[in-house]
Amino acid sequence: MSYDAETMERLFNPASVVVVGASRKTGPGSFNIVENLVNYGYKGRLYAVNPKASEIFGVPCFPRATDLPEAPDLAIISVPREIVPKVVRDCCERGIKSFILVPQGMAEADETGAEIQAEFMAVLRAHGARALGPNTLGTVNVFDRFISSFMPIMRRPALPTGLICQTGLFLATDLGPSTGLGKGIDIGNQADVGFPEALRHLADDSRVKVVAIHMEGLRPGEGRLFLDVLRETVKRKPVLVYKTGRSAAGAEAASSHSGSLAGSYEVYEAALESAGAVLLRDTDDMDDSVKAFLRLAPLRGRRIAVVTASGGGGIMAADAIGEYGLELARFSPETMEALADIYPDWMEPGNPLDVWPAAIGKLYPEVFMKCFDLVADDPNVDGIVCVAGAFEREGFNLPEFLAASSERRDKPVVWWLHGRRDPSLAQRVEGTGRVAVYPSPDRAVRALARLARYYVDVLGRTEDRPSRPAGISPDKAAAVLRGPARCLGAEAFEVLAAYGIPAAPWRAAASPEEAAQAAVELGFPVALKAVGPGILHKTELGAVRLDLGSPEEVAGAAREMLGRLKARTDPAGAGPAGEDGSGLTLLVQRFLPGGHEVILGAKRDPHFGPTVLFGLGGVFTEILEDVAIGLAPLSAGEAERLIARTKGYAVLRGARGRKPADLEALVDCLVRLSWLVADHPDIAELDLNPVKVFTSGEGAASVDARILVEAAPASSLGSRAAVSGGGNLGLEPPPAGRAAGVLPPERRRERSAGR
Amino acid sequence: MSYDAETMERLFNPASVVVVGASRKTGPGSFNIVENLVNYGYKGRLYAVNPKASEIFGVPCFPRATDLPEAPDLAIISVPREIVPKVVRDCCERGIKSFILVPQGMAEADETGAEIQAEFMAVLRAHGARALGPNTLGTVNVFDRFISSFMPIMRRPALPTGLICQTGLFLATDLGPSTGLGKGIDIGNQADVGFPEALRHLADDSRVKVVAIHMEGLRPGEGRLFLDVLRETVKRKPVLVYKTGRSAAGAEAASSHSGSLAGSYEVYEAALESAGAVLLRDTDDMDDSVKAFLRLAPLRGRRIAVVTASGGGGIMAADAIGEYGLELARFSPETMEALADIYPDWMEPGNPLDVWPAAIGKLYPEVFMKCFDLVADDPNVDGIVCVAGAFEREGFNLPEFLAASSERRDKPVVWWLHGRRDPSLAQRVEGTGRVAVYPSPDRAVRALARLARYYVDVLGRTEDRPSRPAGISPDKAAAVLRGPARCLGAEAFEVLAAYGIPAAPWRAAASPEEAAQAAVELGFPVALKAVGPGILHKTELGAVRLDLGSPEEVAGAAREMLGRLKARTDPAGAGPAGEDGSGLTLLVQRFLPGGHEVILGAKRDPHFGPTVLFGLGGVFTEILEDVAIGLAPLSAGEAERLIARTKGYAVLRGARGRKPADLEALVDCLVRLSWLVADHPDIAELDLNPVKVFTSGEGAASVDARILVEAAPASSLGSRAAVSGGGNLGLEPPPAGRAAGVLPPERRRERSAGR
Repeated sequence: MSYDAETMERLFNPASVVVVGASRKTGPGSFNIVENLVNYGYKGRLYAVNPKASEIFGVPCFPRATDLPEAPDLAIISVPREIVPKVVRDCCERGIKSFILVPQGMAEADETGAEIQAEFMAVLRAHGARALGPNTLGTVNVFDRFISSFMPIMRRPALPTGLICQTGLFLATDLGPSTGLGKGIDIGNQADVGFPEALRHLADDSRVKVVAIHMEGLRPGEGRLFLDVLRETVKRKPVLVYKTGRSAAGAEAASSHSGSLAGSYEVYEAALESAGAVLLRDTDDMDDSVKAFLRLAPLRGRRIAVVTASGGGGIMAADAIGEYGLELARFSPETMEALADIYPDWMEPGNPLDVWPAAIGKLYPEVFMKCFDLVADDPNVDGIVCVAGAFEREGFNLPEFLAASSERRDKPVVWWLHGRRDPSLAQRVEGTGRVAVYPSPDRAVRALARLARYYVDVLGRTEDRPSRPAGISPDKAAAVLRGPARCLGAEAFEVLAAYGIPAAPWRAAASPEEAAQAAVELGFPVALKAVGPGILHKTELGAVRLDLGSPEEVAGAAREMLGRLKARTDPAGAGPAGEDGSGLTLLVQRFLPGGHEVILGAKRDPHFGPTVLFGLGGVFTEILEDVAIGLAPLSAGEAERLIARTKGYAVLRGARGRKPADLEALVDCLVRLSWLVADHPDIAELDLNPVKVFTSGEGAASVDARILVEAAPASSLGSRAAVSGGGNLGLEPPPAGRAAGVLPPERRRERSAGR
Repeated sequence: MSYDAETMERLFNPASVVVVGASRKTGPGSFNIVENLVNYGYKGRLYAVNPKASEIFGVPCFPRATDLPEAPDLAIISVPREIVPKVVRDCCERGIKSFILVPQGMAEADETGAEIQAEFMAVLRAHGARALGPNTLGTVNVFDRFISSFMPIMRRPALPTGLICQTGLFLATDLGPSTGLGKGIDIGNQADVGFPEALRHLADDSRVKVVAIHMEGLRPGEGRLFLDVLRETVKRKPVLVYKTGRSAAGAEAASSHSGSLAGSYEVYEAALESAGAVLLRDTDDMDDSVKAFLRLAPLRGRRIAVVTASGGGGIMAADAIGEYGLELARFSPETMEALADIYPDWMEPGNPLDVWPAAIGKLYPEVFMKCFDLVADDPNVDGIVCVAGAFEREGFNLPEFLAASSERRDKPVVWWLHGRRDPSLAQRVEGTGRVAVYPSPDRAVRALARLARYYVDVLGRTEDRPSRPAGISPDKAAAVLRGPARCLGAEAFEVLAAYGIPAAPWRAAASPEEAAQAAVELGFPVALKAVGPGILHKTELGAVRLDLGSPEEVAGAAREMLGRLKARTDPAGAGPAGEDGSGLTLLVQRFLPGGHEVILGAKRDPHFGPTVLFGLGGVFTEILEDVAIGLAPLSAGEAERLIARTKGYAVLRGARGRKPADLEALVDCLVRLSWLVADHPDIAELDLNPVKVFTSGEGAASVDARILVEAAPASSLGSRAAVSGGGNLGLEPPPAGRAAGVLPPERRRERSAGR
């Protein structure tokens, strides 16, 4: 089945609507959905259901949904939670296929709520119906004048902004993309319709130019599907994401609010970034960035000019430019020459360009605009920050002055107007709708940085899709992984071998004598390890000996090790190793001195499925937590950028006078590892710790490996099965594959072929 | 001489004023200082100087200052830069002792400007007169209705805020402490009056309750003096500092704007923090924090409650609480019990406290306030963030509702009102002057964090003054430091010894034979180093051999080293070592295996004088730049906190199963080092790299030492000589010690005794 465009259309723009549980109370403070619809100018056919009324605010009212004269496109349900299943059943029986479920106290709240939710979801499924919510204000469609909210939102004007949020706050107030709205949807607790479908709908609506998302958490297992939609959407329009639940405290609060598992912010960040989202930090950032994308020309590079009426303000802007990863432009010789004509002899103009000295004794607005024009014409300038006071005086109309700067539509211009305390002036400035004015230099510059993220980084990146490396044998790996839950030592190395991930040469041995023989075959020096069900942390247990130089040393160490480990008890509680040591295997491995120790890891994320992790060994991971996370599978380019994100990267490149490490080999390892975990969702965790990376050209080799196998929950099998979500809400998965087809068919084929 | 309170009083509140260079043009857009003074309601005697007028805006006007009928308290000079020296001379001759110098284009601009500045400063000094500026808007005194600005500032009402800034922007607009102002001063290019005197003035004015500072840079050498004033001021009132020039781009811009050397932001940060400033990030932060300090009760701890009408908004606040170093409070059992009565069964209240579910079907404002009261009474709660919509309806007056929360004066309450788009409502809310409302959860929480910084950290800290450790011989160190410019090897170790800083035992030797004998005396193993004028980087030159085990090895290594280094040329250009190696000395040192390698450094900062630096060796300093900086001398507590600020601290405490390092010994080293550089301002740079820190109880020892000696500029001799500033502006120092006495006399005695 394909993406359910019809449901999404009905949620935003129904030809007919029934409000079930409509209040008889109208007027200020009544929170009446029917009244809001009428007042907002809804043009479709409208019905109400309330057993105690025959008419509400001029709208015909019926005792039960079954009494309705037609089956409306949409039912908005606003009744106490206990009777939601009953009224949903009534509506379904009347033939209604789309619902907005307002009530809270459902699966996000308690067990009773979860049972109620399971009950009405079963009714919906049985009738092939779809629902937004519960615990939602629903939708606002300013283009077509539809509103489902009990809050009197009445948003105007229609601006080309699409908003997806997980709290009514963004819809119910003028907050967020506060300069207006086109369509907004409160996802609620995502019992059915979720972020991927909402985003796809806004992607397809050509009236929407910018999408802003407030996200507490995706449904488990839905991450990949959402990223696929996101990746397609950003080709057409910017998608800005404000993900909350960043701190531990916030994440905990999120889980009890919308029932979302907030998940690891680091994984969200890596995932959303990789798919091309513009990440936001807070509500101001959302407001500011939407304004920039709506009003400004694309930013084609990072070279920013500052034109300022205050030297001090220019410095503040320059600070922000440095801190947000932009650069101060260097003006061209032509610009410098032209500026020199304007400036007094004693002042050499620069960037930030302090206009004040040039304006002494002249008409300040004219001088400012002349400087501005010169700078804006400079081919070395990609974008402009202007700093000025929010003053007017006779003959100087500030809003017009600002708007004049925006006539220049080929480069974005942001303004910091200081002292903007006069609300009517502020309103007149905003009212032009043509300038992006911000209340601080930091926010003005940040808005430019968001443009750079989208226009330079996201649109400028070259398509770089993961491609399966040669020499991979998924079946061989699968055969091993079907075995024990913990895959250590020999089995783990077999799994690595199946994916062409290099390891130090090794042999398994059953006895000290076999170990000595294996060492001779491998060549000295060797390392000796005891592996087996009771041995989780080899070093702590003395189950590792390094740098053994002769068969005698190997046999002696093996005997000592087996004797000592024989009767030990696994501290992790897995029980004692075999009494005679028979549960233990000896692993003999070439000992490889030198090289950089790095850690490659993988973990199955509840939202995004298989992720990989890279970090330099030692203090880098253990003390500094200097690791980078990516989604599997990775392209070579992605793997390289992942490694480069860590501070330890500098060490691998050959800091401190050392030879550079074999990054190519390391990248190859990481790519292969990413395919291993992408292909085998049963791998819950994997650690290659350490992998030794030798100097350039000398390759890399995994020295130790640990794999934890655990059947993947149905919800985290990756993108194809991803939409069976709601797992944490105690729900049955919806009809298999229903929403799995959010992507257009041609794209789905492409992904299948890719595997 | 003591702090010049009289000058400061005249700058802010003169009984009589002359405006020299007063414009005849009046009315809108005329930028007329005389007109501004009259319109602002200045009550003193006012004169103007302009050869072309006899009266300006009703104020008597004279051709020259020498023609004035009296010597006014203050002259405001606003003439082209070329004639400033002349008019200053006129004024001085008339007996005027205080000046505000408005013109720009002085020492901050070009050489001519510097010459002009030197000229009028000489005139001022000759007459014992003082000046604010040049390049300044001067002062605003809202309490007493005085203004020196050509911008029509006219600020009202008088709020207990003091402002020191280095750009007119903060005075000329309603920005900054935007809720009002008491006194403001634009420091300009600090030719004479600077930050220390301005702060002392605001500290002494009991009408000022909060001081906000915008700082581009202090004058070189003035750092310690400023810190002393700051340290005293924060005992009485909070001092908020927004230091710009943080990024490289910003720092460069700052230097060309106000002529300030922005200096290293890291040093400023360490210095200002240590003296108890509340550091700010941007203009919003200044605005928000001043409001919080003016309007809110002290925050006595970090446990914050969130009371919210929106679950989603509560999560945003919780995120910010985590990110700004505050904590989510855990409600007491009594509070939880009382809340349970209000909430529906299906919802367990928590923190953030989402009020909405409890308000369903009830009067929302009443429920909100009931929840608020319960939480505010909880002894486990130190401060409260409230989140609500900016709505009013019949019978619900939002400003009154908000103000009711502030009746509770024992705990600070910050509000995030979302959707605050109605300017008149916003004005009514702000107009109450009793609540701290912010436009985003991030900013609301940040304001609380600033309160915590002051009330918990700064006021809560115990006085911890550096005290000179035993066993220090400054004279011995001075004797060595009088010698060579670069102090390496033997001399450096002698300097360390004079301050009781442990080093690996060593002997100097002139020949291979002497070296072998020295090694026998020291005990094996030893390290051997060649030191001398041509040897700067020993390792690169092969001038170090470690772990030598016998007299023969030592002698052989010494011969080889001397032979090889004989004819080499110093890459730093210092010329070849003596042809026969006679310029070289051999240093034999006990080789100490094991231990953590740390780096202790010191550097003379142009603003703050001697600073010390700590970092763990290896990747921590070289790759991660994980170092902490402090001002010398340090107390033991300060040294410990300095070490603890680095990430490497975790390693020293015994991370990764290793034994903890001897932190006590390390702290002692750092304290002694800090006294060494505090006592000897001629030390420009010093590196102990590495110092080996052994396991607890085993001590520490410096293994290598390098000292760079360079006569300190007069301006950086520390606090006593600190105010001779203006060095970077090409000025002669002002009369020696004039402003050096900004501190009250008793405090100066204390410092002298301390040394």
